[in-house]
Amino acid sequence: MEKIKVGIAGYGNIGRGVEKAVNAAVDMELCAFFTRRDPAALQTNTPNAKILSVDDAKSMQGELDIVILCGGSATDLPKQGPVFARLFNTIDSFDTHAKIPDYFTSMQDAAKDTLSILSVGWDPGLFSIMRQLSLAALPTGNDYTFWGRGVSQGHSDAIRRIGGVANAIQYTVPVEEAVQAVRDGKNPTLTTRQKHLRECYVVAKDGADKDRIEREIKEMPNYFSDYDTTVTFVSEEELKRCHSKMPHGGMVIRSGSTGENQHVMEFSLKLDSNPEFTASVLTAYARAAVRLHQEGKRGAMTVLDVPLSYLTPEDPAWQRKNLL
Amino acid sequence: MEKIKVGIAGYGNIGRGVEKAVNAAVDMELCAFFTRRDPAALQTNTPNAKILSVDDAKSMQGELDIVILCGGSATDLPKQGPVFARLFNTIDSFDTHAKIPDYFTSMQDAAKDTLSILSVGWDPGLFSIMRQLSLAALPTGNDYTFWGRGVSQGHSDAIRRIGGVANAIQYTVPVEEAVQAVRDGKNPTLTTRQKHLRECYVVAKDGADKDRIEREIKEMPNYFSDYDTTVTFVSEEELKRCHSKMPHGGMVIRSGSTGENQHVMEFSLKLDSNPEFTASVLTAYARAAVRLHQEGKRGAMTVLDVPLSYLTPEDPAWQRKNLL
Repeated sequence: MEKIKVGIAGYGNIGRGVEKAVNAAVDMELCAFFTRRDPAALQTNTPNAKILSVDDAKSMQGELDIVILCGGSATDLPKQGPVFARLFNTIDSFDTHAKIPDYFTSMQDAAKDTLSILSVGWDPGLFSIMRQLSLAALPTGNDYTFWGRGVSQGHSDAIRRIGGVANAIQYTVPVEEAVQAVRDGKNPTLTTRQKHLRECYVVAKDGADKDRIEREIKEMPNYFSDYDTTVTFVSEEELKRCHSKMPHGGMVIRSGSTGENQHVMEFSLKLDSNPEFTASVLTAYARAAVRLHQEGKRGAMTVLDVPLSYLTPEDPAWQRKNLL
Repeated sequence: MEKIKVGIAGYGNIGRGVEKAVNAAVDMELCAFFTRRDPAALQTNTPNAKILSVDDAKSMQGELDIVILCGGSATDLPKQGPVFARLFNTIDSFDTHAKIPDYFTSMQDAAKDTLSILSVGWDPGLFSIMRQLSLAALPTGNDYTFWGRGVSQGHSDAIRRIGGVANAIQYTVPVEEAVQAVRDGKNPTLTTRQKHLRECYVVAKDGADKDRIEREIKEMPNYFSDYDTTVTFVSEEELKRCHSKMPHGGMVIRSGSTGENQHVMEFSLKLDSNPEFTASVLTAYARAAVRLHQEGKRGAMTVLDVPLSYLTPEDPAWQRKNLL
């Protein structure tokens, strides 16, 4: 069987995770990296793969079965997504939930001869699958998504922008009582504050006013003011030692009824490394995209459009025998 | 929009659950029941639906978009499945795991002009989806399926066949320490006995030798001898009062790694009524089967072949906006 030829665009945390996952996959071959940096300066762990500028992507058209886009949702993907989708089948982890419909439209317009599966990962991604499955199985009910305990990059960055802050890590933490009430089928109405806590570990610069920093964090609109927030000042050394991993996770819980009978469905993730797990999911959907394209499918898709049998290299008969 | 015309074959616990789910669905109309009993004697809760003998199924060909087969896996479905699949699109909950490949072949042969999705429910069904999704996301790892706490009909029946037993209910119960070890990512090797307990509530006939009954239960091969089994004798009144519901549930847990990082995925169900929840899943897949048939798909399928967007009446744009 010929291996799937994969390209990676962007070599940050997700890109490095995808590199690892593709190199571990029995049916894939990592052929190229695309970078916005100077290609000559990029060091990867895949010596046989080419390294090109994103601007030279066109030179690889026809050479790759799929490109996995590993840029960020804020600025990279809205620009790069359609450019790559005109040339290659693509997978990405676009995760700005409110902008997914617009992004879908722009990818749909671009992927005329190709196939692009967008917003792949765990949320959006596996959690979206669970929300759809649980809505299908329990049309009468409520679903709840909790995130954490895990590092939020966006919230950590927001703290780092405060004057006097040298470094910071923020954990999003689900409120245990809220989770329990949902699991017990109580269908509670929960405010933002009742669902999640925010734990901040902050390194202050020498001589900085810690009271002011703590106040500025806790009063920051959108990011912190609607949450119960704790601020703990630590040394740079302690931050590196105790808070340098990128764990995450969360759960989707649906509680619903069929007449007088109550049912609870729950899907949960506990991840040591958010980017590596996300990368692993992206890699599985890359396999699916290539197969769907071979079958003649074109345009934009999401995880809700992909038959699950396409995600693993094992054939359907094996899956029926061993997984069903 | 024209409603999906549904038939139900078999009016036991699952059939009654499907009746409830179809009548609650905004996009479905329950048109016919097929029964092996005397049609004139069958009382349903859907006065407008026809009641026919299974032997007269052919008379409804072309009148129904789908028939949901609600018979048992031991004898009903292997016989009825292919007969109905020649006439209608079908959904069933065939759950004899070891015989699924053979059943798939016989349904594939029968469904030449129709579409049949088999082995739908929660295991096989939603749990199969989770095993596939978690294998895709974590190719390096182990998965574990636990069932319960819930009533096993097969085990309850086995106890009832013992001399001196008037009635009995058996609960399958996951061993908490085993579940915890899996959740903690310890990847334990577990024997049958280490995974599940069996709790039996037994009504003895007047004058029956309870010691002998208890011994016969605990020593019964396949059903009980490989498990830690408890036997509690209760009155018929207590059995009715405390053990007449059909709760069930369970979990699929996969623990795996991406290099040095560990991840745990878990899907769990807590169901007040096993047959009603199963019926609800069958009904969602009935919707998918009709759409796939309209698109030209024919033959046998399982839950692994069905795009999840087909399971709910909401359109894909709504799903992307609200679920992704």
